Amino acid sequence: MQSRSYPEILADRKQLGPYPMEKLKYVDQPTTKITDNIQRIDEREHGFGQAFLGKFGPFVEKEIARFCEKYPISSAMWEMPPQFKLIADGEVAPNKAPIPQDPELLSRHIKSLGYFLRADIVGICRLPQWAVYSYNLKGNPVECNQKFAIVIVIDQDYETMKGSRGDDWISCSQSFLSYNTSAFIACTMAAYIRRLGYPARAHFEGATRSAYQVVVTPLLLLAGIGEICRAGIVLNPFLGTRFKASVVTTDLPLETDKPVDFGLQEFCQKCMKCAHECPAKAIPFGDKVMYNGYEVWRFDTERCTKYRITNQNGSACGRCIKVCPWNKPEGWTHDIVRWMVKHAPFLDKLIVKVDDIWGYGKQDIRYKWWFDLEDADGVLQIPGKSQD
Amino acid sequence: MQSRSYPEILADRKQLGPYPMEKLKYVDQPTTKITDNIQRIDEREHGFGQAFLGKFGPFVEKEIARFCEKYPISSAMWEMPPQFKLIADGEVAPNKAPIPQDPELLSRHIKSLGYFLRADIVGICRLPQWAVYSYNLKGNPVECNQKFAIVIVIDQDYETMKGSRGDDWISCSQSFLSYNTSAFIACTMAAYIRRLGYPARAHFEGATRSAYQVVVTPLLLLAGIGEICRAGIVLNPFLGTRFKASVVTTDLPLETDKPVDFGLQEFCQKCMKCAHECPAKAIPFGDKVMYNGYEVWRFDTERCTKYRITNQNGSACGRCIKVCPWNKPEGWTHDIVRWMVKHAPFLDKLIVKVDDIWGYGKQDIRYKWWFDLEDADGVLQIPGKSQD
Repeated sequence: MQSRSYPEILADRKQLGPYPMEKLKYVDQPTTKITDNIQRIDEREHGFGQAFLGKFGPFVEKEIARFCEKYPISSAMWEMPPQFKLIADGEVAPNKAPIPQDPELLSRHIKSLGYFLRADIVGICRLPQWAVYSYNLKGNPVECNQKFAIVIVIDQDYETMKGSRGDDWISCSQSFLSYNTSAFIACTMAAYIRRLGYPARAHFEGATRSAYQVVVTPLLLLAGIGEICRAGIVLNPFLGTRFKASVVTTDLPLETDKPVDFGLQEFCQKCMKCAHECPAKAIPFGDKVMYNGYEVWRFDTERCTKYRITNQNGSACGRCIKVCPWNKPEGWTHDIVRWMVKHAPFLDKLIVKVDDIWGYGKQDIRYKWWFDLEDADGVLQIPGKSQD
Repeated sequence: MQSRSYPEILADRKQLGPYPMEKLKYVDQPTTKITDNIQRIDEREHGFGQAFLGKFGPFVEKEIARFCEKYPISSAMWEMPPQFKLIADGEVAPNKAPIPQDPELLSRHIKSLGYFLRADIVGICRLPQWAVYSYNLKGNPVECNQKFAIVIVIDQDYETMKGSRGDDWISCSQSFLSYNTSAFIACTMAAYIRRLGYPARAHFEGATRSAYQVVVTPLLLLAGIGEICRAGIVLNPFLGTRFKASVVTTDLPLETDKPVDFGLQEFCQKCMKCAHECPAKAIPFGDKVMYNGYEVWRFDTERCTKYRITNQNGSACGRCIKVCPWNKPEGWTHDIVRWMVKHAPFLDKLIVKVDDIWGYGKQDIRYKWWFDLEDADGVLQIPGKSQD
């Protein structure tokens, strides 16, 4: 009855998590060209950083102070990050656990732990120093020298996205569902690795609390979660951009994943649905350009940030996530479309057209389970309704 | 483009969560007889309460102090409850939100929020005072006068259960996966309800921290999550007993669920697999008896508690969960068996036999992704291996 202390036959399993990530085509270089000398980013220069520091004007600065608090669900979610911040890092056990120093096995072990903790996707890459912030929002230099980054992805919920317009009152809560749930997993995973005798720190959305020391987009790219899309963020073939991620950085010896190629660059070149639908007109229609060391569609951070923060008909915005043809539930019909995008890219335009005709990207009011409410000086009101 | 402030057509949806709970047969009285005068329980008289207070002897008292800490995953998980404790309750908004006072709508809204937050099952019942502890572990009187209990159920993970024996090193972590995940959801839900202007408190596993003020088993029964099984706990037709639950108590006006009947009493009468397999011999083979106001199979709490706390070949125990024929993944074959148990109970014995032949209840080592490790005075060791 004594079971083995050692999961050596874990390698038998073809698919560790809910999505068949193992079946994707892995490539040596990301499908987005990256130059060799990317500069480290100052967190204060991020869209939200600039907004916090008043660089987008006083109205944006005033509105960002109630970014989560203006809607009662996202406001409730906002109680969580300060708690997680208390356990994001901690003491490392002085002795290393008697586990095999086999990076392949340890990666499969750590990914399985992530899936056990209910992550949707887990990927692993080396942590390049250019993906570490140079300074945080408070202007303090950031240091994070751990070798690996474990990326923990959580879906923002397909059904709720179906019921929403993408930029209505639930939008900020959709983001924080994924931020908080992935943070919850990251904190537990990091605490476990520290008990094995290796440093590990959880990085997650905590806004002014600076709980991210690392820039997530390049890590998603390097860890094989997806490709960079026209909207300037990473798109996963099974979730679209309908996710957020937290990260665990560590020195536990791990085997890394490689970037993926599922045909997105050619698809995004032709689709442009997000560019058409973006209420802030922040997503370009044109070709890719070199920007900050990446060859990408040149997304307008300022417009996007301002719109999300000052949206008066909702909280935040994820309309590009909502209308993207990759925003789909699981299902074999979508498996076929994914196969076509990869193997028959000449069909891309037709696929986008059929997607429109089928009604994808429209709001399905049967799935709207939440109330439209807005906090005005501590009192919840129905937005747009004149008050007594 | 302005969407409605009011989810009035939510009632259209036939199934709100991942499991077809809405299709079960709901009955006015639980299938377990309950007398009218159940006494409130003192938390110190619970199995774990008695162990804490030294009533099961010094070895049990010593071992309970390292119940979670002896294995590095459950130990990492143990960092979470103190954080949640800080936000389990809080200030209630002084003004009530402008939402319809429609209990049916509000129940569907709250359940949909729970499913959005990734709960597996959400059920609602009135909170009877006999389900509130009289005193907590510290000997302080407990008061909880809120009208309703929202029960949030989280699966302990089928695949991990497949890879385990049920009482090996991952067992305690399986429990805390569900305790912590449901607590995370309960804290967010309670914080949301307080913002709507109604009191709400999250109740969850925090051991000596007394984060539960309510007894979970009767609430699971009244909220229609399942029936009481031979092992003395509530069994859900889709998850078996492979779950734990947190609770939100509140005065938000809600419509309650009713108890369910899916044929379990007759099934458990014949099956006895858990009684055969229980390593503590805590589960009886005989008939139901009246005990503490419930007509139940008379489970031996002391044996079960002692075994879980002092298990030297693993951490905790969930062998009854593992071997139960209801411990199954989703799938139409299992839907058929569920139908047979309900409509053709004369087949129960045959079903149990086929379940055995099919190999259910056995450990499938391909799913064992964790290491066997044991903390000995702060140093992780391979259990059962003589140390240098």
